Amino acid sequence: MAYDKNNVFARILRGELPKVAVYEDQHTLAFMDIMPATKGHTLVIPKEPCETIFDCSPDGAAATIRTTQKVAAAVKKALGVPGVMLVQLNGTAAGQSVPHLHFHILPRAEGLDMKLHGRTMVDPKTLVPIAEKIRAAL
Amino acid sequence: MAYDKNNVFARILRGELPKVAVYEDQHTLAFMDIMPATKGHTLVIPKEPCETIFDCSPDGAAATIRTTQKVAAAVKKALGVPGVMLVQLNGTAAGQSVPHLHFHILPRAEGLDMKLHGRTMVDPKTLVPIAEKIRAAL
Repeated sequence: MAYDKNNVFARILRGELPKVAVYEDQHTLAFMDIMPATKGHTLVIPKEPCETIFDCSPDGAAATIRTTQKVAAAVKKALGVPGVMLVQLNGTAAGQSVPHLHFHILPRAEGLDMKLHGRTMVDPKTLVPIAEKIRAAL
Repeated sequence: MAYDKNNVFARILRGELPKVAVYEDQHTLAFMDIMPATKGHTLVIPKEPCETIFDCSPDGAAATIRTTQKVAAAVKKALGVPGVMLVQLNGTAAGQSVPHLHFHILPRAEGLDMKLHGRTMVDPKTLVPIAEKIRAAL
């Protein structure tokens, strides 16, 4: 399937939609999920246009996991949680909602109930102090 | 926490425990999960001793995601499923059961119920024909 240039993350990458960013480099961007499944739910995406892990270049995938590794450590430190779950969904059948490759970074604590996707959009302002903590922990 | 050299995956890497492998290179190994959450549940691990994404080298993480990308495409093709979920758990609080970094490759189809970890060990013989299909699709 052809990459949809107007998907939400492509528009975020072009600056057409707002984001609460925590990290950016030449190849990747990390920002707060606007529909968090848990407090601190962060997303990491490659800048190259790809829908899933299958059509991403090996270098793009490597850059994305390196950023995920770096940001996940900051999320863990900033949120003070004992566990972190990384999830990457390929295809609507797997629960993928935005057709641009993304890794979910999900803080986890014992007994914490969680759905993989939140269902409620939050006020971006509530994400800003969390993002500040994560950036400070990078 | 110090890396436990006697964890199950370390022993698999040393050849002390059996595995149904689908792929191996200098830095990584992919093999069938012995307690599959779904048919085709495959694991990818780095050969370097690390417990989570946090203590894995950036190069080790990159090698692991490259192999995961390759093997996940083969799993999708071999199993004929529309979706693939990648999950990587850090810390017992996040559900990690073996203290050696691993990526779960989980075939997904609409409506397929799934727990992240299976609870029942299967006869390794039942995994062999699935592994053969995956190897053929690589």
